[in-house]
Amino acid sequence: MSAPHRFDPNFTDNVINAMGPKTTPRFRQLMTGLIRHVHDFARENEVTVDEWMAAVKFMNWAGQMSDDKRNEGQLVTDVIGLESLVDEITYTLAAEAHDAPTATAILGPFFRADTPFRHNGESIVRTAAPGGEMAYMHGRVVDHATKQPLVNATVEVWQASTNGLYEQQDPAQEEFNLRGKFRTDADGRYAFYCLRPTPYPVPDDGPAGKLLELMDRHPFRPAHIHIIATYEGYKPLTTQIFDRKDPYLTNDSVFAVKDSLIVDFVERKGDPQAGLELQYDVKLVPAPALASS
Amino acid sequence: MSAPHRFDPNFTDNVINAMGPKTTPRFRQLMTGLIRHVHDFARENEVTVDEWMAAVKFMNWAGQMSDDKRNEGQLVTDVIGLESLVDEITYTLAAEAHDAPTATAILGPFFRADTPFRHNGESIVRTAAPGGEMAYMHGRVVDHATKQPLVNATVEVWQASTNGLYEQQDPAQEEFNLRGKFRTDADGRYAFYCLRPTPYPVPDDGPAGKLLELMDRHPFRPAHIHIIATYEGYKPLTTQIFDRKDPYLTNDSVFAVKDSLIVDFVERKGDPQAGLELQYDVKLVPAPALASS
Repeated sequence: MSAPHRFDPNFTDNVINAMGPKTTPRFRQLMTGLIRHVHDFARENEVTVDEWMAAVKFMNWAGQMSDDKRNEGQLVTDVIGLESLVDEITYTLAAEAHDAPTATAILGPFFRADTPFRHNGESIVRTAAPGGEMAYMHGRVVDHATKQPLVNATVEVWQASTNGLYEQQDPAQEEFNLRGKFRTDADGRYAFYCLRPTPYPVPDDGPAGKLLELMDRHPFRPAHIHIIATYEGYKPLTTQIFDRKDPYLTNDSVFAVKDSLIVDFVERKGDPQAGLELQYDVKLVPAPALASS
Repeated sequence: MSAPHRFDPNFTDNVINAMGPKTTPRFRQLMTGLIRHVHDFARENEVTVDEWMAAVKFMNWAGQMSDDKRNEGQLVTDVIGLESLVDEITYTLAAEAHDAPTATAILGPFFRADTPFRHNGESIVRTAAPGGEMAYMHGRVVDHATKQPLVNATVEVWQASTNGLYEQQDPAQEEFNLRGKFRTDADGRYAFYCLRPTPYPVPDDGPAGKLLELMDRHPFRPAHIHIIATYEGYKPLTTQIFDRKDPYLTNDSVFAVKDSLIVDFVERKGDPQAGLELQYDVKLVPAPALASS
């Protein structure tokens, strides 16, 4: 499994085999894999005591900077792509599962469970966003296979303002600014006004920022809108959509962009409320259909 | 390199290739290896978002518990064997190097640079240690190959008291209790009284303790004495010696025991100061000899 090396050949197995019988099977599996990979990494790269100690200090620093409002440990793992990877893994497992997935874990840190319903056609922009471009976002929620409209489905959205902050991060924004829940009409349609999303940097004044600097990378995330769509009897969908014209689309600092999630804002004429338009249809998969797949 | 999997085949390379040209070669090597192993670990074990988030919280907790007196991040890596492994790697690299190694990094957290010299035959036990057994430790410092005694070599030792604490951790212990530097005499001999070392648990009230509990492991370290021996023109030796009768010898919670470091305390008769004796010879390697190897 591991490459040949000139260090104690039994060391890693000894550490793994130290686990006692009361370890749960899943924890044993995870720790076995983690210990093996961490040891292989150290041997393959001949990690020195000084380098290990620098890494320990770095990780302690991340913990020390973290609190209720900031999770620097998460951000460190984000910039090496780990959150996006476990997202992909969790989605893949959910798609393969026979029962509907519980997507609550993959909502990201700025989801709010108590977002209010708004009427179709309303604006989620409740606090002025300097430099922001207004857009009219609309579409249908349909059955993935039959393309039949799903009536009374829920579409929930949230986005950051032009200063890069979500409303709960920014005292200057009205509560629930740039978020809302909508129900589809008799044709399965939803619609609302929002901002064309804008790119923003992840916080770069701590260890994650230092890591980005050492890797000679920028801290920016491409502009995106978060979406959750739900309908009784269908698998809930949690996703983000990205603006094709965003300069950071191909180099997201946390590697969350997927080709299928890229959308096009187009010019909208004759609407005093918005100069841009985004049409986006949401396709949901019936939950029971999965049981026979 | 990696096992086949059903996730995005380009993802890991994309994350690695995001590093810019100003990354140093060593940092690029380390981050490339780390990202590859962490991603492989996540895919092989299908790590979920919930498991990743639990790990992030755990690592943040370690940082939050760490301060000047306690390094919980270090301890977490210790209990998965990483410190001992990077120790072995660093020693191996030093042994292969043509110049004398700088062993300062691998002294452990309780070394003190300002430990005073004591006379041969003195005791390092300056504060009574409840339940402690006194031992007379003695031996010679010799040339590794010729076995010639090295006169005026320095032997520095330090050990924890029977409560598991080193003097700087314990206000009840006199300063420099259980530590001392000795010079070898005209026969290359050193000698002093010390405690038979006793096992102690690593701190287990934080994340490292939680990890040990989840792995169904105990927190104990086997009894040991730290030694540094130096002599002009020879490579300094930094090591720990372990008592063969210690119950934790085969399951050190931080995996530092090596067979060659196990020693035997024997009964000592007719000495009112000590009922035990330990004979230990230190063999040093000339620094110039390495240049021709």
